[in-house]
Amino acid sequence: MRNIKLIIEYDGTNYSGWQIQKNHPSTKLKAGKRTIQGVLEEALAKILQDKVKVIASGRTDAGVHAKNQVANFKTKSRLSLRDLKNALNANLPDDIVIKKVEKVPLEFHSRFSAKSKIYRYQISRGFVSCFERFYFTRVRYKLDVDLMRREAKVLIGRHNFKSFQGSGRKAKDTIRTIKDIKIKEKGRYIFIDIEADGFLYNMVRNIVGTLIEIGRGRFSEGSMKRILEAEDRRKVGPTAEAKGLFLMKVKY
Amino acid sequence: MRNIKLIIEYDGTNYSGWQIQKNHPSTKLKAGKRTIQGVLEEALAKILQDKVKVIASGRTDAGVHAKNQVANFKTKSRLSLRDLKNALNANLPDDIVIKKVEKVPLEFHSRFSAKSKIYRYQISRGFVSCFERFYFTRVRYKLDVDLMRREAKVLIGRHNFKSFQGSGRKAKDTIRTIKDIKIKEKGRYIFIDIEADGFLYNMVRNIVGTLIEIGRGRFSEGSMKRILEAEDRRKVGPTAEAKGLFLMKVKY
Repeated sequence: MRNIKLIIEYDGTNYSGWQIQKNHPSTKLKAGKRTIQGVLEEALAKILQDKVKVIASGRTDAGVHAKNQVANFKTKSRLSLRDLKNALNANLPDDIVIKKVEKVPLEFHSRFSAKSKIYRYQISRGFVSCFERFYFTRVRYKLDVDLMRREAKVLIGRHNFKSFQGSGRKAKDTIRTIKDIKIKEKGRYIFIDIEADGFLYNMVRNIVGTLIEIGRGRFSEGSMKRILEAEDRRKVGPTAEAKGLFLMKVKY
Repeated sequence: MRNIKLIIEYDGTNYSGWQIQKNHPSTKLKAGKRTIQGVLEEALAKILQDKVKVIASGRTDAGVHAKNQVANFKTKSRLSLRDLKNALNANLPDDIVIKKVEKVPLEFHSRFSAKSKIYRYQISRGFVSCFERFYFTRVRYKLDVDLMRREAKVLIGRHNFKSFQGSGRKAKDTIRTIKDIKIKEKGRYIFIDIEADGFLYNMVRNIVGTLIEIGRGRFSEGSMKRILEAEDRRKVGPTAEAKGLFLMKVKY
């Protein structure tokens, strides 16, 4: 038996996320749309002539993208790693690309072995080109990026992020450690990179939504600290759109 | 009566080009797909409550993109330019974006007034990210880019480009002037920029297809000169895919 690790890139636009959960509120809305996991397991079943379960580092929501999602599965197949990669890319639709296939120790688990994950949120100010329409959120307001940077710093460290948890899936333990938040400007673009040991449901999008409210002046300086300490979801800004969000890296 | 000039960006992926011609060989294949011109004229009819005919600097084929297509139309409407731009962008699908709306002299004609056009062809070597899948052509072979540059130089100037004319639409006069060809490398990307006073049907894609054959060593040094002088379409390389092609700029 081998444990195979995949590094996967996907455009989430046409998927209802990595995996649909039964009883999840979005399940009904997205009916008919495929999941990344589903499509990947179908391709593997065809290639390996065997049913395998693919475990990812974490779920991504409908419309969310990944540059380097990590997943693993166990198989008795003796197919070479190179052939497996080529067969997968030949059998997958072109919005899912397998970037790397590796053999890893049997105990490796994409989710439990992960030390941290980095998400990037992409904003375009004023104009969104039609070539960027699935990958950037447009913000029409002037944003005070320096203020956003100062306010974001409050979140770094070990905190109870309950305020930033979306209403869909509730974790019992809402304590997480944000290792770093970087906000970069490049022309009309703003990139918000957040690294944490784990993320609650919709946590990045709720942080970004709050940062935008702060940047445009609707939430005053000091808001982030108050919202974090309130441990109350009703205090945060609107959840930023899924399409601007990318899973960039998983660290082990 | 005002003459209105538009600068338009579009993602050609889901369109059968700027305009479908009757009797054109591709018409049957692409049946059911919309055209950029058709969608734009529909939006204008709704906004202006009047039928207008939109003239572009030139047609682009199915799957070809534009960063700055230029078009114009005449109207009696008194709608401000700003309102017209906003109404257009509100009524157009998000793969067509109006970047600029200007009032121009009545005699301005997007096609006949154009002095030159610049097309860019985008190649990615080895790997095409899923986020680039509609905008780059993948080339798996090693390419001798310096040789491609030397061979491309042969095309600069006033020549009979009959060899590079696609079989779809035949121009009587196949003499054109290529003002410049630039081939830029940036990591795994190659960008081929061609400026000419006009282009024959499929001319850029046939030039690029030939350059790729030269770069990978299937056509020897000196081939471009022989092909150009042959004035025979059967000598050129395969037509490069539409998706890598962008209309970048029209000069007046």
